[in-house]
Amino acid sequence: MSSHLLSVDSLERENVDHLLRVAARMEPIAQRRRITRVLEGAVLGNLFFEASTRTRVSFNAAFCRLGGSVCDTTGFTFSSMAKGESLYDTSRVMSGYVDAIVMRHPEQGSVAEFAAATNVPVINGGDGPGEHPSQALLDLYTIDKEFARLGKKLAGAHILLTGDLKYGRTVHSLIKLLSLYDPLRITLVSPPGLEMPGYLIDLVASRGHQIEQRDTLSCDFSDLDVVYTTRIQKERFTTEMNESFSGVSQDFIVDRAFLDQHCSPTTIVMHPLPRDSRSGANDLNVDLNGDPRLAIFRQTDNGIPMRMAIFATLLKVEDLIEENMRPVRWFVPKQIGVLDR
Amino acid sequence: MSSHLLSVDSLERENVDHLLRVAARMEPIAQRRRITRVLEGAVLGNLFFEASTRTRVSFNAAFCRLGGSVCDTTGFTFSSMAKGESLYDTSRVMSGYVDAIVMRHPEQGSVAEFAAATNVPVINGGDGPGEHPSQALLDLYTIDKEFARLGKKLAGAHILLTGDLKYGRTVHSLIKLLSLYDPLRITLVSPPGLEMPGYLIDLVASRGHQIEQRDTLSCDFSDLDVVYTTRIQKERFTTEMNESFSGVSQDFIVDRAFLDQHCSPTTIVMHPLPRDSRSGANDLNVDLNGDPRLAIFRQTDNGIPMRMAIFATLLKVEDLIEENMRPVRWFVPKQIGVLDR
Amino acid sequence: MSSHLLSVDSLERENVDHLLRVAARMEPIAQRRRITRVLEGAVLGNLFFEASTRTRVSFNAAFCRLGGSVCDTTGFTFSSMAKGESLYDTSRVMSGYVDAIVMRHPEQGSVAEFAAATNVPVINGGDGPGEHPSQALLDLYTIDKEFARLGKKLAGAHILLTGDLKYGRTVHSLIKLLSLYDPLRITLVSPPGLEMPGYLIDLVASRGHQIEQRDTLSCDFSDLDVVYTTRIQKERFTTEMNESFSGVSQDFIVDRAFLDQHCSPTTIVMHPLPRDSRSGANDLNVDLNGDPRLAIFRQTDNGIPMRMAIFATLLKVEDLIEENMRPVRWFVPKQIGVLDR
Repeated sequence: MSSHLLSVDSLERENVDHLLRVAARMEPIAQRRRITRVLEGAVLGNLFFEASTRTRVSFNAAFCRLGGSVCDTTGFTFSSMAKGESLYDTSRVMSGYVDAIVMRHPEQGSVAEFAAATNVPVINGGDGPGEHPSQALLDLYTIDKEFARLGKKLAGAHILLTGDLKYGRTVHSLIKLLSLYDPLRITLVSPPGLEMPGYLIDLVASRGHQIEQRDTLSCDFSDLDVVYTTRIQKERFTTEMNESFSGVSQDFIVDRAFLDQHCSPTTIVMHPLPRDSRSGANDLNVDLNGDPRLAIFRQTDNGIPMRMAIFATLLKVEDLIEENMRPVRWFVPKQIGVLDR
Repeated sequence: MSSHLLSVDSLERENVDHLLRVAARMEPIAQRRRITRVLEGAVLGNLFFEASTRTRVSFNAAFCRLGGSVCDTTGFTFSSMAKGESLYDTSRVMSGYVDAIVMRHPEQGSVAEFAAATNVPVINGGDGPGEHPSQALLDLYTIDKEFARLGKKLAGAHILLTGDLKYGRTVHSLIKLLSLYDPLRITLVSPPGLEMPGYLIDLVASRGHQIEQRDTLSCDFSDLDVVYTTRIQKERFTTEMNESFSGVSQDFIVDRAFLDQHCSPTTIVMHPLPRDSRSGANDLNVDLNGDPRLAIFRQTDNGIPMRMAIFATLLKVEDLIEENMRPVRWFVPKQIGVLDR
Repeated sequence: MSSHLLSVDSLERENVDHLLRVAARMEPIAQRRRITRVLEGAVLGNLFFEASTRTRVSFNAAFCRLGGSVCDTTGFTFSSMAKGESLYDTSRVMSGYVDAIVMRHPEQGSVAEFAAATNVPVINGGDGPGEHPSQALLDLYTIDKEFARLGKKLAGAHILLTGDLKYGRTVHSLIKLLSLYDPLRITLVSPPGLEMPGYLIDLVASRGHQIEQRDTLSCDFSDLDVVYTTRIQKERFTTEMNESFSGVSQDFIVDRAFLDQHCSPTTIVMHPLPRDSRSGANDLNVDLNGDPRLAIFRQTDNGIPMRMAIFATLLKVEDLIEENMRPVRWFVPKQIGVLDR
């Protein structure tokens, strides 16, 4: 594995398997039964040039759970860069302060440019329409873990990806990771104009997977194992698309009725979050809250062990984790949410 | 005690007594003579949807003093919520990352809504005009500690509450806590239009306390033990109130002249801070700086042991504190301020 | 040494020597070969009323490397002060929460006013056009360390300071520190209107140093040991200066051609950063990237050991550092940047 995590493209099957195994070993810590201090003394630079509370806190907490300290930076007010400092200079300066860097930036390619100037491990926390590899890894980890719980195998599974498949970087990265595994059945459903890019469909097909495209959720789906929905981000639309889309948006909502009609008791429903819970939103419906098949909160929970695994692997401490574990002594609720997770 | 701290309404007398006792046991740490690492490995989500540096740093430092790590979030840019994420979803996601949550939010009730979705302990750090229970608890702790130093008893004490008693959530919560104790004499002084709500006066009276309302500080007060002043927040005024108030504002300033006339050497003067120190401000006057009766900085200092006590109680580590204490080895000034505290 | 670090003016030669020696002892930690936890349990208030990511992260990381925890505050939204709270009150309140305070503030003198209200150590992290003593100390530490590496002595060295010598607080503080040492040759080069203030030239000359002023870089310089360049901050210019300056700005750029013509293989090039890397910028040129004489990233790296030394000295733990050191177990790249540092 490279010294950075910039894109899922750089990951071989064995790298992904390694991360999945290390994440599983992080579970006692992520579930707050054990603590470790293996990164005691280490400092993370958590540089968010674009606000993303959820992702920032997840990386921050994961590094803290390993025993390290975190320096956070949020927002567009990165003062030096406003004065004309290059990403090269910023990268070199930050590398002298910290042991690892997570960076989110609105411009595609900027995180890679930043990483090119340093040997300190850099993790892409999202670069605009580009990549967000830790999200794809935690999604894959979620499928792996849920399948193990349900006694299912990934090989031959039927996975439905729906929503905005054109601009959703999450589904692009996830489908690349999935394509590294044994043959799957993948069904893509998106409104016209928001289809998955052709090069990705070709890539997946070339690796032996069965892939099918549809333009509506109102058809027969057999044996769905995973329903992965994404938010349709209207802010990315042209005026033209806004007009044509307004009539069809309700057709892409995954709700209880959809599950009743198309899914089995062992289907799991995922979403990269945030979802829009306002009335009239064209998103994963809140009427599924409390349904055990709704895996979205287990999915975000999995961000902690996966991000711990990424840090531990890049900083090469994954073999030291167990020797440093101690029991948690504070109160941990049996169920974290008031509903089943 | 419930698993959250959302309002003083949920506190029984025994819960309050417990918190006062635990806070007292935190003093060696808060005064920087001892350290503890009992919460090592634990992570606090310190979510301030409304800026409040003082309160945020106080909770942050209290959690650090217990050995834990803190993820801070400040400001109105909570990106997921701007995209329509519900408090329910935010709560569930954050609960998967952290072990306890402090939340400040401009809307009354929002912290309770957030807490309803999780079993991870949630502390209300202020929800607009609603509650701010940790402030009332540290205020009560201050009275308790000052009285012990002065050899006084709470029973029968005379407490003056003055300023904006209508909108000041601090005094609402404090008077509820005080009402749990042995009979007191409480005098309320506020400008017309800013009186304490009737239901609170009724509550306090129904519990056997002697309560009296006045509209000016220019009258006789006998034996004041506590003078608790609050800022009159002009930004809450209607135009009408602004006009009628401008003539009377000077009548509600607590200053050296007021203390000389109405108070004994053992009266203490409190204020939830911040106070307006600009010339012409209708607030606690700076001419009292250096007067040992001015307890306002001892009061904010007390925020650390009380917030430590709240964390330790909710996370159920209060019995582990002493076994983990070690001496501080760095320099701690004898007096922190340049004047007596 | 005083209990605060507000200005280099308060530093005697022996204080500076002490800080240089302690910084050198911090190198194993700063270079991530050892960790220490000597400040475990201590809390830093890192109060940036003016954004400065680089300086804020440097102080934060330095305190974390000593084992402490950090409460950060950034921006102009310091809510209490917006409501009229005095620096005096803010200082007293913060002092009750934390063990040391770093403060940056846009107004000259404000950090000193803040420090006057507390005995908790306060470090000036930059007060507008005033002071930034930790920068000057790390600059001096860099010269000291580079000279040791090159087998040079400070006595008799020739140091060129160029750029905006009028408004650049960095060079003001640095020249004061240098003046405490054995006689040097100092050459100042600045555009008309941006000359070093006369009182500083007089001070340096009165202490036995040879000091010379020029208005162009296009002349003969013999035996330069240090070239210290600063950004010409156009935002400080009057309209008049803008007009007269536009023609001459290119004359003050330090680039490869300048080094080829005027410098030896053992000259070092420094800059307080950030530098403006945009095309047409009148700053230290990017064509020097990769040249081993470019010391700017080694210089920012040195911010960590020097700031650790400042914290350790003010908190009086400098003698405990070695007894607490343990080896680092995570991956540390041999070279942090992709180019030589």
